[in-house]
Parts: sequence; C-alpha cells; structure tokens
Amino acid sequence: MIEKLARMAMLYDFYGKLLTVKQQEIMELFYGDDLSLSEIAQEYGISRQAVYDLLKRTEKILEDYEAKLGLVAKFKEQQQRIACIGELTALAQQTANLNYLEKISEIIQELKDLERK
Amino acid sequence: MIEKLARMAMLYDFYGKLLTVKQQEIMELFYGDDLSLSEIAQEYGISRQAVYDLLKRTEKILEDYEAKLGLVAKFKEQQQRIACIGELTALAQQTANLNYLEKISEIIQELKDLERK
Repeated sequence: MIEKLARMAMLYDFYGKLLTVKQQEIMELFYGDDLSLSEIAQEYGISRQAVYDLLKRTEKILEDYEAKLGLVAKFKEQQQRIACIGELTALAQQTANLNYLEKISEIIQELKDLERK
Repeated sequence: MIEKLARMAMLYDFYGKLLTVKQQEIMELFYGDDLSLSEIAQEYGISRQAVYDLLKRTEKILEDYEAKLGLVAKFKEQQQRIACIGELTALAQQTANLNYLEKISEIIQELKDLERK
C-alpha cells in the first residue's frame, strides 16, 4: 500500500497538471490529505462509489501518461545514480582516495546516456 | 532557427508520444527528415497551408505541455549540473586535488533539491 501511495504521489507530481481540476482535487484529498472515500463523497455530495470510480479512472490516466512517456522511470534511474555519486564522493573525501573518481566518471557517463534515451 | 529546432526536438522527445499519429508524422517529416512544407503537402495530398497550420498547432500543443509540466526546463537544469560534475571530476583526477570533491557534493545536493521541486 505504501508502494502504491509513493507511486501515485510520483505520478501525480509528474503528470498531475494534465488532469482536470476535479481530478486533481480528488487526488489531493485522497492521497495528500488522507481523506477516506466516504469523506470525499460527503464533501462533493456524490456517492462513495462515484468517488471510487473517479479515483480509479484518474489513477489510470496517470498510469497511461507514464506508459507513454516513461518519465517517472527515467527519473528514478537518474535519482539512483545521483545518490550513488553522492556516496562515492563522500567515500573519496573520507578516505582521500582518488580512485573513486573513476567510478564517478563512469556513472556520469551513464547519466548522460540516460538523457539521450 | 537552430534554437527553435533544438527546442522542438526536445519538446518532441519529451511529449511527442502524447500527439496523434498524424501530428507525430508531420513533426518527424519536418523536423526529423527536413522535408519542406510543400513536400509534406504533396505526400499527404493536402495544401501547403494545411501542413503549416497542422505544424503550428502541434508545436503549440507541445509548448502547452511544457508550460504545464516544465519537464524540459527541469531536465536542462539537471543536464547542466551533471556536466559540471563531470568537469570537476576530470579536474580532480588531473590535479589529484580532493578539494574539488566538496564542490561536487554541493552540486549533488542541488540535484537532489531539484528533484523535489
């Protein structure tokens, strides 16, 4: 469930602005403010089922954007490599060992290759 | 003009998959294969003006995606910093000077902050 939350948060972060205002509102109430389906239903004066359907449809729209553009996946790969460079830099500083620099160069090259994909 | 080409190439690279097949084709013929408006018009059996309009409309759609999502701008900022880390790493290697590592750490922090924006 946490994984689903994190994924939706990320998809919404990337593609949320492409949703309608209502879709954005429902996503923010459910995923951002942690409101239950019933609470959202009450707020909008619609049925719990209608909120559920709206939410599922919106999640699917976001997943469809990611299936087409793949920017979240690309971003995650980048993030991993940047974290890796961070760790190697810290290690190089702690040990005063320049050999880590070669590995850093390799990862930078990977990052540049990733950009061109 | 080259700047416009580079921008359209990048926007298309990021958001092209959200266009219709016809819009994608026209963009690829004009920007990828360097065909003229007249040549594309001939290929589709439509007027030169119709191709022009289609192209302008498609460019506007891509610009609208960027206005909403800003992923190309974010990507460019990232790219600059990654290139910078590459240069600093090379300098550190050439001079065997570990002081560059501190600057690298700073840029990595900037990259991480950028991700969260």
